[in-house]
Amino acid sequence: MPIQSYLSSRSNLAAKFNKPDHTIVDHYTYVILGDGCNQEGVSSEACSLAGHLGLGKLIALYDDNKITIDGHTDLSFTEDVGKRYEAYGWHVQTVEDGNTDLEAIHKAIEAAKAVTDKPSLIKVATTIGYGSPNKANTHGVHGAALGGAEVQATREHLGWEYQPFEVPEDALSHWRKAIDRGAKYEEEWNKNWENYKAKYEAEASELERLISNKLPEGWDKVLPTYTPEDKADATRNHSGKCLNSLAGVLPEIIGGSADLAGSCMTLIKSSGDFLKGHYENRNLRFGVREHGMGAICNGIALHGTGLIPYGATFLVFADYMRAAIRISALSHAGVIWVMTHDSIQLGEDGPTHQPVETIASLRAIPQLTVMRPADGNETSGCYKVAIEAANHSRPTLLALSRLAQPNLAGTSIEGVAKGAYILSDSEGEGTPEIILIGNGSELQLCVGAAEKLRGEGKKVRVVSMPTWELFDAQDAEYRESVLPKAVTKRLAVEAASSFGWCRYLGTEGDMVSIDRFGASAPGPVALEKFGFTVDNVLAKAKALLG
Amino acid sequence: MPIQSYLSSRSNLAAKFNKPDHTIVDHYTYVILGDGCNQEGVSSEACSLAGHLGLGKLIALYDDNKITIDGHTDLSFTEDVGKRYEAYGWHVQTVEDGNTDLEAIHKAIEAAKAVTDKPSLIKVATTIGYGSPNKANTHGVHGAALGGAEVQATREHLGWEYQPFEVPEDALSHWRKAIDRGAKYEEEWNKNWENYKAKYEAEASELERLISNKLPEGWDKVLPTYTPEDKADATRNHSGKCLNSLAGVLPEIIGGSADLAGSCMTLIKSSGDFLKGHYENRNLRFGVREHGMGAICNGIALHGTGLIPYGATFLVFADYMRAAIRISALSHAGVIWVMTHDSIQLGEDGPTHQPVETIASLRAIPQLTVMRPADGNETSGCYKVAIEAANHSRPTLLALSRLAQPNLAGTSIEGVAKGAYILSDSEGEGTPEIILIGNGSELQLCVGAAEKLRGEGKKVRVVSMPTWELFDAQDAEYRESVLPKAVTKRLAVEAASSFGWCRYLGTEGDMVSIDRFGASAPGPVALEKFGFTVDNVLAKAKALLG
Repeated sequence: MPIQSYLSSRSNLAAKFNKPDHTIVDHYTYVILGDGCNQEGVSSEACSLAGHLGLGKLIALYDDNKITIDGHTDLSFTEDVGKRYEAYGWHVQTVEDGNTDLEAIHKAIEAAKAVTDKPSLIKVATTIGYGSPNKANTHGVHGAALGGAEVQATREHLGWEYQPFEVPEDALSHWRKAIDRGAKYEEEWNKNWENYKAKYEAEASELERLISNKLPEGWDKVLPTYTPEDKADATRNHSGKCLNSLAGVLPEIIGGSADLAGSCMTLIKSSGDFLKGHYENRNLRFGVREHGMGAICNGIALHGTGLIPYGATFLVFADYMRAAIRISALSHAGVIWVMTHDSIQLGEDGPTHQPVETIASLRAIPQLTVMRPADGNETSGCYKVAIEAANHSRPTLLALSRLAQPNLAGTSIEGVAKGAYILSDSEGEGTPEIILIGNGSELQLCVGAAEKLRGEGKKVRVVSMPTWELFDAQDAEYRESVLPKAVTKRLAVEAASSFGWCRYLGTEGDMVSIDRFGASAPGPVALEKFGFTVDNVLAKAKALLG
Repeated sequence: MPIQSYLSSRSNLAAKFNKPDHTIVDHYTYVILGDGCNQEGVSSEACSLAGHLGLGKLIALYDDNKITIDGHTDLSFTEDVGKRYEAYGWHVQTVEDGNTDLEAIHKAIEAAKAVTDKPSLIKVATTIGYGSPNKANTHGVHGAALGGAEVQATREHLGWEYQPFEVPEDALSHWRKAIDRGAKYEEEWNKNWENYKAKYEAEASELERLISNKLPEGWDKVLPTYTPEDKADATRNHSGKCLNSLAGVLPEIIGGSADLAGSCMTLIKSSGDFLKGHYENRNLRFGVREHGMGAICNGIALHGTGLIPYGATFLVFADYMRAAIRISALSHAGVIWVMTHDSIQLGEDGPTHQPVETIASLRAIPQLTVMRPADGNETSGCYKVAIEAANHSRPTLLALSRLAQPNLAGTSIEGVAKGAYILSDSEGEGTPEIILIGNGSELQLCVGAAEKLRGEGKKVRVVSMPTWELFDAQDAEYRESVLPKAVTKRLAVEAASSFGWCRYLGTEGDMVSIDRFGASAPGPVALEKFGFTVDNVLAKAKALLG
């Protein structure tokens, strides 16, 4: 159900580009939904939000046929749907005979259009398989073909005397009126557009830029860079700064969180909240509706008008909207998923909130780039990747820390684009004896352990691996240069499940990981108890070195 | 929000065990929920179903304080909650002053109890942080402590003159009246129970068995076994037979699907649907509400009265209820997750429905046993594991095929319990040259390829690996006996992502897998195009052998 599809982008674009004398963006968004759609929680979330926002250009036609896969809705679905939508603040109408009363459907749509401050639901009472003498109104016709005999019986029952695929001339010419009518609308709009372009050059140029998916020149120059002398900070804070810097040069960025703005650091400070009467604003307040947020972000991206949406929550709650994240990957929706509180490091909230297996489960999704930056430079690097990906209809997901971590020497925006890169090598010639691979809040542990090992004369390489997918996409030569096949002693460090890491560790590698649920404790205590310390990394590295 | 927690078990147990002259199970289930709970889609699903089922013993108190983490509910949540619940078929009341009007709350609860054919919602209007002069009614007090100064100010504001943790004598003795009152209730119930036991020996004995988590002797004997001569069948069908056989000896089994009963094969044929007036029935019709189903199943298991719930849908839709599956693992809820249509083999429904990465993402969840049986024997073996696990408060998940696959020689119920086992070895002495590892619908490809390789004189072992977790839990000796370290040429075959398989394949192994989204085509065509054929398995095995 694409109800969420165009929820926000149309109103936002209309608010930004329409002028009193020129309406450029004014299309309605129509949705056709069924009983199943109305049972799924994601639609409850989206429709509650649509009512709250007063999205008057949204018109939903509910195919109310009382049949689902398992049979009659008496089995499991007997709520008063119209009343529920009224409770959401929608305008609700009913068409009693949706099978044949086209005039009533038409009138209802016109009435819905006339209500400009609420989304509209039109309950259209229909008979599934209408016209089929033996299968109408049964779940047998929900998903299965009628079959030859029943098709014939239906034709007879409806008095339809034409051959298969034969379209009567009068029907054809009636439908084809749409061509001329459409051409006329298009010509009018084009004329309007030419006038608009002449009068509002800057706005027109901006809209054209958006729709053609052209990012402005040098947009990425605003991404901040850091040195080790800069204050340590959580990557969720670095993320907030990146979003705000980018928002200044990329008006197409629009997004929000599921009631966690102050935790995910995702408010665009230069803008207000997207609310009734303020559709020009860019901060989307999704409420405690993760799956709805995910679906809405997909819709905004797929609307195809160049907007780059981001949706944010705690990493562990990616589970609530996993279906939407999968769709963004499958359907090429350029969304940026901003996931904070990305490990046991989040502390006291405990195992219900501490992700362990979440990042592995997301890496497994094809066509999704999952990134876990270690510091300020790497967070900027992740946003460079994310914006470029969104601009090419590819989703990305950022896993960000709650607590502060230092800016490390050697991190770079360019390195992140390669997925993994050498942070540091021992001085002098020669193959490393051991490679420490880390990312996010654990990269610093690799750096600390490497220093000690080098102090003992070991040849150690430290690799930062914020993203698997981008590294796997590099050519064989680059990958060999970072992780030479000959170097089999490898230790990975990530405060997450080891699931899948064997691809980089082989049979002789090891890992500092957490393969059980977390525990409630202050973040640093949790990390220490679960072995995420320089000392433990050192010990495991030494065990590998033998 | 545990609204879903006790939805079904209480009514079901009451219907089964209460007699006209003895009420044994009659407790109410109370829920306290907030604004966040009311925004989450899962609660919409559960509450719609609760209304449909007329669950009159369910009473929810809504802490209506208009504050969430991000601030006032004006930001994102302005629906008419009471009207929505009425639309669901709930009985709705409002308490205007929930801060001090205890009498009104009490009256509302009594009124709710008196409504026996609908669940009840009591909207209790409250002020968050009531009594705090500076922080009441702000989101600052939603999750953060008041702080010492504000605690003191609150005490003064409320006229509370006692020391921290000092409980005034009159309050203490009032609360302690609950002890005697409770003792009296317990004594009455125990007396009632003794009479019930004397009069209804069989029922009492059965209820005692359930509550003490004792499975009946020999329950697993009903699980069907097969030989290769038995008709090929889909494992979803084998699953349906197992469920029905077990349902006959284990009255505690209760469950259903999310509107896919005829596809998941999860109807208990000897019982009707659990509906208003028929709470003794065992088929739960969850409707198109996967996340709600998941939460309800958790609640039934956690009710602690020995019921074993199962929830079914298509494997790819596990994504919709991943949060509930995770909770079942974290919170020790003995649920059986029955997931069918488990690979690209499902065919025409295409990539939105074809799981690729789903099984890997579920294997990553700690404390969840994921099983993919190859035939009838293995499906029976999975159910033996599943029932025992549920009986010990551990969830399991079965991945089952849509299309038929043959019963293979060598499969066994006992083998499944070990997670992975040798299906066949080449004749004669000696270490295998290569090990083919398969499960589910692909095990037959390993069998077919092994036959050809053996025909060419190769020493081939075929291992069936329906479950990773159980294999990893075996002792080192067993694991070495199945997958000897020395045998590095290993080929795994699973119509799913290779993500994570490296743990069994090492650096010299290979896999026939699918690491991209699927495609719509008839199932056998999809399998063939993506390389799941005996010929391709053979070719890859030969490449390994060199």
